[in-house]
Amino acid sequence: MKEIIAIIRMNKVNVTKKALADNGVCGLHAMKVMGRGKIHVDLSVLSDMGATEEIAGIVSESLSKGSRLIPKRMLSILVQDNEVDKVVDNIINVNKEGNKGDGKIFICPVLDAARVRTGERGEAAI
Amino acid sequence: MKEIIAIIRMNKVNVTKKALADNGVCGLHAMKVMGRGKIHVDLSVLSDMGATEEIAGIVSESLSKGSRLIPKRMLSILVQDNEVDKVVDNIINVNKEGNKGDGKIFICPVLDAARVRTGERGEAAI
Amino acid sequence: MKEIIAIIRMNKVNVTKKALADNGVCGLHAMKVMGRGKIHVDLSVLSDMGATEEIAGIVSESLSKGSRLIPKRMLSILVQDNEVDKVVDNIINVNKEGNKGDGKIFICPVLDAARVRTGERGEAAI
Repeated sequence: MKEIIAIIRMNKVNVTKKALADNGVCGLHAMKVMGRGKIHVDLSVLSDMGATEEIAGIVSESLSKGSRLIPKRMLSILVQDNEVDKVVDNIINVNKEGNKGDGKIFICPVLDAARVRTGERGEAAI
Repeated sequence: MKEIIAIIRMNKVNVTKKALADNGVCGLHAMKVMGRGKIHVDLSVLSDMGATEEIAGIVSESLSKGSRLIPKRMLSILVQDNEVDKVVDNIINVNKEGNKGDGKIFICPVLDAARVRTGERGEAAI
Repeated sequence: MKEIIAIIRMNKVNVTKKALADNGVCGLHAMKVMGRGKIHVDLSVLSDMGATEEIAGIVSESLSKGSRLIPKRMLSILVQDNEVDKVVDNIINVNKEGNKGDGKIFICPVLDAARVRTGERGEAAI
């Protein structure tokens, strides 16, 4: 049993929801988050532009510190172990535009689950 | 040390909070989520209604894709290992109405914790 | 690979964000949560004040049940294993005021990650 957490663009929730339903994955939870990814500053580009090392450092620093958090959606999807790769590929397929901010996925272990309605535990509760 | 994540109805947060406090579990965090559970389409019922396989397929598909996300509350509760079953039973007891959407609970491993005020680590920080 | 979850005061998000960026940790997600920590009722103080055991019990009970949830921010930070202690210390340093409600941190295992833009998996995706 695994929890797949995906942070995606706000405007991608519906297509992702549909893509997952098409693949038989219906249960998911979405929440608003504010996020920022890793910032890659290519210092060689700054250097080519004639920036001294000091200036490059300042630019790099201000870019990383000034970076504002961007509204995103976090999806949490509980799946069986053998569904992980399918769901990850699915999410990548519909969210990949090749741009920074496309999103991130991470996979966490889940020890047990319970369905409140029936009290069922384990795999049956997914 | 475990994290119990419970997705429950919005109107059940207060009774759940009280039930947990009654059992000595005071620390919890609640957040808004939009969720949908697994959709069970009983194809034999559709068949009994005279639907062809094709129609049943369309109904099943539109039900699963058209399903809107419903506002829910997600509770995150950090507990000692020996409190897991008590807390899960507690949450089920006050949230079980026997209807779809009653909620889902899952239990995740937590490796370590820290209390910011004191810097305490491990079990002492729960 | 680990997920560090930190629940901090609302007015501490920016200093925490900056402190993490200063230490090379740029990727994080923040969300609104409502939370309450453990409530410590010092019964001996009540006793010194002349309260009977019964009164102390009532006070303790009403404190724990009446406790309202307070708006907080939850940060989720995905890090390499060797960054965990640095990030935890960082968060404690900028959030520790010595008061209840300073916050709580917990560390969860993450099995795998994926960067949506490139499809990269594992450590490379952090």
